[in-house]
Amino acid sequence: MRNIIEAVPNFSTSNPTVVKAILNELKKIANVYLLDYTYDDYYNRLVVSFVGNENSILQASLKMAAKGIELIDMNQHKGQHPRIGAVDVFPFIPLRHISIETCVRIAKKFGKSLAEKHQVPVYLYGMAAEPERSDLDWIRKGEYEALFEMIRKPERKPDYGPAVPHPTAGATITGARKVMAGFNVNLNTSDLKVAKKIARTLHAKKGGFATVKAMAASVPKKKITQIGMSITNFDQTPLYRVFEVLKLEAARHNVSIMSSEFCGMTPIKSLIDIAAYYLKIDNLSEDRVLEIAIQKAMEKDLQHDQRKSRLGN
Amino acid sequence: MRNIIEAVPNFSTSNPTVVKAILNELKKIANVYLLDYTYDDYYNRLVVSFVGNENSILQASLKMAAKGIELIDMNQHKGQHPRIGAVDVFPFIPLRHISIETCVRIAKKFGKSLAEKHQVPVYLYGMAAEPERSDLDWIRKGEYEALFEMIRKPERKPDYGPAVPHPTAGATITGARKVMAGFNVNLNTSDLKVAKKIARTLHAKKGGFATVKAMAASVPKKKITQIGMSITNFDQTPLYRVFEVLKLEAARHNVSIMSSEFCGMTPIKSLIDIAAYYLKIDNLSEDRVLEIAIQKAMEKDLQHDQRKSRLGN
Repeated sequence: MRNIIEAVPNFSTSNPTVVKAILNELKKIANVYLLDYTYDDYYNRLVVSFVGNENSILQASLKMAAKGIELIDMNQHKGQHPRIGAVDVFPFIPLRHISIETCVRIAKKFGKSLAEKHQVPVYLYGMAAEPERSDLDWIRKGEYEALFEMIRKPERKPDYGPAVPHPTAGATITGARKVMAGFNVNLNTSDLKVAKKIARTLHAKKGGFATVKAMAASVPKKKITQIGMSITNFDQTPLYRVFEVLKLEAARHNVSIMSSEFCGMTPIKSLIDIAAYYLKIDNLSEDRVLEIAIQKAMEKDLQHDQRKSRLGN
Repeated sequence: MRNIIEAVPNFSTSNPTVVKAILNELKKIANVYLLDYTYDDYYNRLVVSFVGNENSILQASLKMAAKGIELIDMNQHKGQHPRIGAVDVFPFIPLRHISIETCVRIAKKFGKSLAEKHQVPVYLYGMAAEPERSDLDWIRKGEYEALFEMIRKPERKPDYGPAVPHPTAGATITGARKVMAGFNVNLNTSDLKVAKKIARTLHAKKGGFATVKAMAASVPKKKITQIGMSITNFDQTPLYRVFEVLKLEAARHNVSIMSSEFCGMTPIKSLIDIAAYYLKIDNLSEDRVLEIAIQKAMEKDLQHDQRKSRLGN
C-alpha cells in the first residue's frame, strides 16, 4: 500500500451477531485490514478500526455502513454514549503518505454515496465541515430521540440526503480527523454523580484540558463507573498528565482508579510520553524504539532492492 | 530482508574520529542499517546497534571490528566499564525469522575469522559457549590490564586465535543472545560509594533481580553518579519494577533520580509494561499499538500483492 488511511466507525450496537456481520463485510474487499474492534453493553456501541488505501477504504466503508443500516434499529437502541444513528460516526484518518484533505474528500464521497443509496441523512463534521457546523456534540444535540424534530431546523439541515431521519438508522456523521487517543478509566464507585463531577474537571468545555473530551458512564454489571475520554492532541496534552489529574480529583471524593483501557488503537507517542514521564527518560523517541527502527530499516531495504532490480532491467 | 539479525558491538573508545571511522564501515556493505549508537567519556565506550541479514551482518561486523582493531590502542584506554579489548564484545541477536542457533553459528564464524585475520584471541560467551565459560563477568575478570596473565590459565584459553593478547586490541568476546534492555539512571550524588550500594541492591549476584546486572559509575563532568543496568529478561523483570526499587533504595540515602536513558534500542514491550503499570491499563499489547498494527497490515498487503502477481504470471 502506497498510502494508508484508517477508518474508525462507531456503530450503535453491542449485539455479537450484528458485530460479526459488520466485521465480515471487511473480508469482501481486498487491501483492507482490521486492526481492532471493541464493544460493550453499557455504551451499547461498537468501535472498529481498520486500514486501507484511497480506493479500498471507501469501498469497505460503504459495505460496512450498509450492513449496519440493514441490521441496527435505532428505535430499540439504548446506550450511555450520545448517538444519532445506526452508523453513528465514520471518521477517516490520514496515517501515511496521504493528506487530511484527501481524507476530507473520501469522507464527502462516502457521505454522498451513503445518502444516495440508503436515504440516510449525512452530516459532515470536523475538518470536513464549516467551523460552525463542525462540532460532534452540537450535531448530536438531542440525540436520536430528538432527531426527527432537530433535523427540520435550517441550521441542522444535513449535508447529504433527505432532511428526514432514516426510519431505523437515523442519521450518520462523517469527516476527517487526525489520530487521537481514546482512553477509559474505571472508578471504584457506582455513584454516577461523583463520576460526572470528575469527568467535568477534565473536559475542555468545562475548563479542563483544551484537547480532552470526557464523559461519565455507569457500568452496571460491575457496579462501577467509567470516565470515557478522547484526547484529540495527545502531543500537547500527554495521557499521563490527564491520568494524574483524574487521580487527584478522584481522591478528593475518596474514589480510586481500578483500571484503564485504550479505546481503539494506542498511538506509540502516548506510550513514549508515559514512559518518559514516570521513568524520567531523557532520550526517548519513536526512532529509538526497536520495533519501529526495524520497520524503517526494512522499508529502506525494500527500496534498495527495488532500485537494484530496476537498474538490472 | 527475509531474516533480520541485530548486532550490538561495544568498542573501547569515545574518540569522535574513531567512532566516525567505525560507523563509516557500515556504509560499505549493502543490506545493513544503523539503528543507533551512543558513546561517552566516563565509560569511554561506544555501543552501536545495527541490523542486517544472515550474510550482510557477518560482512559488516568483520569490517567494523577490523577498523576498531586498527584504530584503538588498549594500552591508552581508561574507562569505568569492564573490558578486555578494543572490540570488547560483539553479540548477535535474532530479531525476525531467524533462530538463536543461527546467530550462534554467525558468532562462531565471526570469531574464527577475526582471530585468523587479525591474530586477536576470541572468547565465545552466552549461548555460544559452554555454561562454565558463558559468563561475561568471568571472561572479563581482571580486565585488559590482567589479560596477559589470565589468558595463560588453561580455563581461560580463548576459543579462537592465539593464547596471547593482541598487542593493542587485547581480546574480543562474541556470542548470541536475546534482546535485552540497557538502562542507565542518573543520581543526584557524586558519592560513588552510595551509588555502588544502590547498584548492589539490584544486581542478580548480590540478591537483586535475577535478570538484572547493575554497576555504578562516576560522571565527573556533571558531578553525579550513574547506575548502569542490563535487564536480560525484561518480560520477567519489567523495567518499572527495577526503577521503583532503585528509587526506594536511593531515597534511603537521601538521593534522588535526576534522569534516565535507554542505552541502545528500546524494546516496545518495556514501554508497554511501563504504561500498563502506571496507568493501570488492562488490555495493552503490542498488537494494539497503532504503528505496529499498521506495519503488520502492510506486511500482509505485500504478501497479498505478491501472491496476486504470482498468480497473474
